[in-house]
Amino acid sequence: MKIIVLSGSIAGSKTRSAARYTAEYLQEHYTEHETALIDLADYSMEFADGRNYLDYRGETGRLAQSIMESEVVLLGSPIYQASIPGVLKNVFDLLPDDALRDKVVGMFITAGSQRHNLIPEIQLKPILSYLKAHIVETYVFIEERSFQGSEIVDDDVRFRLQRLVDDALTLADVYARVREIKDEQYGF
Amino acid sequence: MKIIVLSGSIAGSKTRSAARYTAEYLQEHYTEHETALIDLADYSMEFADGRNYLDYRGETGRLAQSIMESEVVLLGSPIYQASIPGVLKNVFDLLPDDALRDKVVGMFITAGSQRHNLIPEIQLKPILSYLKAHIVETYVFIEERSFQGSEIVDDDVRFRLQRLVDDALTLADVYARVREIKDEQYGF
Amino acid sequence: MKIIVLSGSIAGSKTRSAARYTAEYLQEHYTEHETALIDLADYSMEFADGRNYLDYRGETGRLAQSIMESEVVLLGSPIYQASIPGVLKNVFDLLPDDALRDKVVGMFITAGSQRHNLIPEIQLKPILSYLKAHIVETYVFIEERSFQGSEIVDDDVRFRLQRLVDDALTLADVYARVREIKDEQYGF
Amino acid sequence: MKIIVLSGSIAGSKTRSAARYTAEYLQEHYTEHETALIDLADYSMEFADGRNYLDYRGETGRLAQSIMESEVVLLGSPIYQASIPGVLKNVFDLLPDDALRDKVVGMFITAGSQRHNLIPEIQLKPILSYLKAHIVETYVFIEERSFQGSEIVDDDVRFRLQRLVDDALTLADVYARVREIKDEQYGF
Repeated sequence: MKIIVLSGSIAGSKTRSAARYTAEYLQEHYTEHETALIDLADYSMEFADGRNYLDYRGETGRLAQSIMESEVVLLGSPIYQASIPGVLKNVFDLLPDDALRDKVVGMFITAGSQRHNLIPEIQLKPILSYLKAHIVETYVFIEERSFQGSEIVDDDVRFRLQRLVDDALTLADVYARVREIKDEQYGF
Repeated sequence: MKIIVLSGSIAGSKTRSAARYTAEYLQEHYTEHETALIDLADYSMEFADGRNYLDYRGETGRLAQSIMESEVVLLGSPIYQASIPGVLKNVFDLLPDDALRDKVVGMFITAGSQRHNLIPEIQLKPILSYLKAHIVETYVFIEERSFQGSEIVDDDVRFRLQRLVDDALTLADVYARVREIKDEQYGF
Repeated sequence: MKIIVLSGSIAGSKTRSAARYTAEYLQEHYTEHETALIDLADYSMEFADGRNYLDYRGETGRLAQSIMESEVVLLGSPIYQASIPGVLKNVFDLLPDDALRDKVVGMFITAGSQRHNLIPEIQLKPILSYLKAHIVETYVFIEERSFQGSEIVDDDVRFRLQRLVDDALTLADVYARVREIKDEQYGF
Repeated sequence: MKIIVLSGSIAGSKTRSAARYTAEYLQEHYTEHETALIDLADYSMEFADGRNYLDYRGETGRLAQSIMESEVVLLGSPIYQASIPGVLKNVFDLLPDDALRDKVVGMFITAGSQRHNLIPEIQLKPILSYLKAHIVETYVFIEERSFQGSEIVDDDVRFRLQRLVDDALTLADVYARVREIKDEQYGF
């Protein structure tokens, strides 16, 4: 399977650190799959203007296409102004309505305070649901104090990121099986 | 007072049309105030990267500063992927946490379907609330069929936009009065 | 498997009608499972007061216990005052925090208008998610005009209810399989 | 003005304690107004069944009528299962759609953890907004550790409850003034 770990921020280092940890875990433990780390900080992205995603060129086009071709997305986001950053929302705006259909999406969120614990539930899940993703229900919420510099220093956070990956890949397997069952049921 | 009508989209014409109508109504009926129309489609904006808003230069800096200096914002937004566009969220990301304190914000939303009627309630109001805005509770939700080309052809929509402006300016007056009362109460 | 179809309303007939249709479809097409229709209108329920669910007696106790013992819940709700009815929320309040763990929950919603289309996404899914349910992501939203008296007269609605049932039962099967895989992985 | 402090819970003592503190502050500092404390724990309420609010009898009828006749509501709620309790939602279900029009509503919320800090924003404000309330935007969120037995032992919480009351009453005054201005504008 094609797996993307997406670091949905261009500022700060925490989301990127969690994304790197997640990608490394995947590359070590799931060698049979193809894992790519996409860090929005490395991309010079255009603002979405309503074009078909295939009509974006350069890095914007490559970004959109990588997501469309993936089967599992591990999505990292900070919380800015009580929601996901505009730069991450812009990634979704590049894509068609059902862009995440049949893809499994797991989330890890970095934030300054537990007060924002439910923002992914309210601001991010409905967007992923609209895009038809299969969502791993439990997300990993990481407070700032779990980082020292760019390193995760909290064992529990590392464990929860590993579980997120394991759960996402297990779900991807079972949804693949659901699709087979449905195809048989409806005779496709 | 300084009033901004902000068209929060760079694609399509509907949000811009509603913004223009709103700005014209203000300029005709509230000549004592200073109204500016800001159309994100006219701005070459950078993605927010965590800088202080005063450190953005060029059009990004001017955009941030105009909003900070305003007292009333009439905010227009389309609905993309079940939320506000990334380009509009990016505007909020440029600003400090309490950027909208003591400002009155009214919303008009253009969307393809009534199914999205509550998205401003859920995706936009909590952001404005986090930024400390005084929110005009009733927003104007405009379906695509109310436009013909770039013109609003629905009298009821025009009337509701006028009421939104009137309500926003009345609220701005009364909140100014509230601040006076509080300053007296607390002896500032 | 034990399947419950829960009609979460004590007023009106539309949610009950949809619940009956759903239960009949289950009883005809899934004879290997045990389907029960629970209509809140038939129960004299107490308000939840913080007791352990096993300590409620009479109909309140039976209701709580039926839900706890089920493996799949098809949950019907009307929309009152922009949310689910208090009577349905009270059912959740009777139960412990992780009451729906390992249960699959599908939703069908009756409402007067498409304007309320996203209320289940925002008001109901977070509660089910908090209770640890596996949620069937796509819910069936039924407008009043799809009913004539107490009958569903819209073929598309009937088809979508059938798909909801099929999807819920397929999901229940695959989550059962996921649990087996996890138990092997973690050596339970 | 008629002011109600509503304790929206029948279990536990924290919401009631905060409600009592709020009512006492009102009775001491706003002697010109009529303050009533309504504790749902003292009411034997029926579940709402779609009747007109005037057709409920006994305590249910008195409860509905008290709210309808009030001009300011200070609303206390615990968080159960990631939302407001069913018993409180049932109070809203007794009332007509625009029950809170022209009323100012302030909220104080008791909860076990900061993780629930945004639940009032998401689960309660949209209901109040649907009922047309003027909402005091900043609510008082009180963690369990601010109580000792049934007493609030946190000075900051007491101060924030006082500010909530002051802000609600100031808002009620200015909205009364807004209504006067509008009546003049539209010639009523």
